[in-house]
Amino acid sequence: MSTIAEKYYPSEPEKPVIKTAIPGPVSQEMLKQLSGVYDTKASYYVADYYNSIGNYICDADGNMLLDAYCQIASIALGYNNPEILKTTKSDQMSVALANRPALACFPSTDYYKILEEGLLAVAPKGFTRVLTAHTGSDANEMAFKAAFIWQATKKRGDASFTAEELSSVMDNKLPGTSDMVILSFDKGFHGRLFGSLSTTRSKAIHKLDIPAFNWPKAPYPALKYPLEEHEAENRAEEQRCLDAFETIVSQWPGKIAATIIEPVQSEGGDNHASPFFFQGLRDLTTKHGILYIIDEVQTGGGASGKMWLHEHYGISPDIVTFSKKMQNAGFYFKDKEIEGAMPFRQFNTWCGDPSKALIARTICQEIMNNDLLDNTSKVGAYLYSKLEDIQKSYPKLVSNLRGKDRGHFISWTMPNASIRDKFLFICRQNGLNIGACGDESVRLRPTLTFGVKHTDILIDIVSKALSQL
Amino acid sequence: MSTIAEKYYPSEPEKPVIKTAIPGPVSQEMLKQLSGVYDTKASYYVADYYNSIGNYICDADGNMLLDAYCQIASIALGYNNPEILKTTKSDQMSVALANRPALACFPSTDYYKILEEGLLAVAPKGFTRVLTAHTGSDANEMAFKAAFIWQATKKRGDASFTAEELSSVMDNKLPGTSDMVILSFDKGFHGRLFGSLSTTRSKAIHKLDIPAFNWPKAPYPALKYPLEEHEAENRAEEQRCLDAFETIVSQWPGKIAATIIEPVQSEGGDNHASPFFFQGLRDLTTKHGILYIIDEVQTGGGASGKMWLHEHYGISPDIVTFSKKMQNAGFYFKDKEIEGAMPFRQFNTWCGDPSKALIARTICQEIMNNDLLDNTSKVGAYLYSKLEDIQKSYPKLVSNLRGKDRGHFISWTMPNASIRDKFLFICRQNGLNIGACGDESVRLRPTLTFGVKHTDILIDIVSKALSQL
Repeated sequence: MSTIAEKYYPSEPEKPVIKTAIPGPVSQEMLKQLSGVYDTKASYYVADYYNSIGNYICDADGNMLLDAYCQIASIALGYNNPEILKTTKSDQMSVALANRPALACFPSTDYYKILEEGLLAVAPKGFTRVLTAHTGSDANEMAFKAAFIWQATKKRGDASFTAEELSSVMDNKLPGTSDMVILSFDKGFHGRLFGSLSTTRSKAIHKLDIPAFNWPKAPYPALKYPLEEHEAENRAEEQRCLDAFETIVSQWPGKIAATIIEPVQSEGGDNHASPFFFQGLRDLTTKHGILYIIDEVQTGGGASGKMWLHEHYGISPDIVTFSKKMQNAGFYFKDKEIEGAMPFRQFNTWCGDPSKALIARTICQEIMNNDLLDNTSKVGAYLYSKLEDIQKSYPKLVSNLRGKDRGHFISWTMPNASIRDKFLFICRQNGLNIGACGDESVRLRPTLTFGVKHTDILIDIVSKALSQL
Repeated sequence: MSTIAEKYYPSEPEKPVIKTAIPGPVSQEMLKQLSGVYDTKASYYVADYYNSIGNYICDADGNMLLDAYCQIASIALGYNNPEILKTTKSDQMSVALANRPALACFPSTDYYKILEEGLLAVAPKGFTRVLTAHTGSDANEMAFKAAFIWQATKKRGDASFTAEELSSVMDNKLPGTSDMVILSFDKGFHGRLFGSLSTTRSKAIHKLDIPAFNWPKAPYPALKYPLEEHEAENRAEEQRCLDAFETIVSQWPGKIAATIIEPVQSEGGDNHASPFFFQGLRDLTTKHGILYIIDEVQTGGGASGKMWLHEHYGISPDIVTFSKKMQNAGFYFKDKEIEGAMPFRQFNTWCGDPSKALIARTICQEIMNNDLLDNTSKVGAYLYSKLEDIQKSYPKLVSNLRGKDRGHFISWTMPNASIRDKFLFICRQNGLNIGACGDESVRLRPTLTFGVKHTDILIDIVSKALSQL
């Protein structure tokens, strides 16, 4: 029986093909040229997307790397997926691209169907509504705005805006503006626009010199691994964080509009917490009238073996935001009141993009039609078991292996950033594109079509790189 | 000789076709269905983009409306433009859509060429660099971040970040965060994310209940019309605003990172100022070390008869932001230092979208190859002269006609919002899709292929609607 990758990508290489150092001479020349007009300071190499296929990214020098990073976790099915390519060639796509609508004012005749068959077909249970956005940052900020307006509306009741509100807000002053806040978590990452960046607490370099709102942060559990050997300690740590959360709520009485949390903190280091912790937050937010926003921008789209990672926890938040692997950003919600009662408050020119909604529909349908969640769970379990062996073989280099039963949403800790970065560099030279997170961690973010064959190659290169450190 | 619209759109209707009230029964049914999953509170009707063509938008009931609003000023060439459709069918587009890159980390082999032949080929004089973004709001916020980092870097010199900066910033506190500000203008509109919304001063409803930074605003000139009868008064008004600007600068010593201004305030009411005022701002910002950001999100892309409206003023700002008609957002700049010296500070996952850069390239090339700026200037002059006649015929209903020598970037004032909204409604029922701005103004935002023939139809419907008020 052929694997899903073999079905989609008959021409996917058997293994990485390495012809030059990475970046090679062609990449370097192209980066030099591009740097004359565009910022290339963060560029690893130039990618040839025409010749990338499936789980392999091709670079400008013709190197083919197995990709376990996938455009920062945003390629769901693989490069040049035939079903997505078919969608891109459709007349529906042409019309969507050539006539990008102002969706809130002049929605298209087919937008309902595209949402129903795509984004809404995979929505978390009970989530029946969606607002579309442009990026993960944008989706989170729209969720924040929804929370602020919802809270203010609850307080205001049937009263209309006062003259003082209407005038003070034009000077960015109370009472027209708001002194409510979003409570986020230490090491969380929610984006880099001014509101989302104020909730981001991943790394200083993301935030330095940029004005931020005086919004509070709560501690996020620091679990000890292996989990099964630290159950009592970890439960106490999670309870400590829940208690601290409630203390902060008491320090900001009536001021916390919403809390936002990633079901696994990704950029900040792939930090996990248990269902107990996430249910505890549900209980506390309900008790205190705080909206509970789960940020599934990086965790969503199936990499954990469920469509949304928080579904592993059996919790039901108020708002779920998404982007990346969905290729279309936005947020799901249950209660129509979250949308607000007046037009032009939650509003912008485009309010999303039907061309991205079309791609999202294909991705969602392919995930469902090909049991890709099941594939991800099974391959993830195999990958995790192989990494357990590696952890045993290299106990000084690999620790805190994380992501058991979370598909291939897997990571581990290395001794420090310098060793970690050297490890990533060696992996790339050997044909494995792989990413960092947090201060000293490695994160795996392959596509949902990543198979046993790819796993074996990844493990082989990882072992080789570790042996060279 | 055929007009550009006849060349592009041989099947464009001769005049509007009205079959039902707008919204008609099919639109209403579709809006009801869509409202079950998506926000439709701001929807006028459902649009059939498959059957829209050129300067005519088709609705779900088969009505064909002449469009002078164009998805809130964001359709440059017309609906289903054949050259854009060709671009959407290209393999390059398929690859761009199916493999959306994290551009800053893994730029594509063709990104340099796409930028060079598109966005950079139409950049304001002397602007040699671009950073791409996702929306106008996003472009403006990236420009703000560039300004904050640039100012902080200038102050810090060669020193590295202090331990206190590195730790305080994680709590959103000084000195790691910044207490610098962006100075914007009364009635300006720069977007609706938290940073951009803090600079937006258009309408209270855009801002109410949303937290905002305590950033200052300067007065924007309130010119009297007709301009030629109020030269001395208007010059004094502009000088008053320049003086007020400098007073605010003195009240925020060393704290103003940048000022942002639209070359014509669009959403806030199509408020114009003269080259004297904009040059005055250039002089003051240079004198005080403040970056000068021109927001061309709505004004750019050729509607004024020049690619960028500020080019009418002969000024050279530091940063120019764009979106809407370009279909690709971002900002131009001249000085590489604006980009910052370290990677991952001005950064996000996608950093733009090659599929949008491809559309932008086609739009830019079509504008250049078909002399669409010239077309817009000429048609705009004709349209303006016809509206002057209307203003004379309906002096109580139409006043402050604005946009002479600014292509068809034209607007006028009506007695109040209720009469204005009734006017827009009657126009729609008669086959003209037309938009509002400010409290009581009407703004025209047709495509660059809008011709004399379309102008005559527009004038006819406008006259008819005015006669019914």
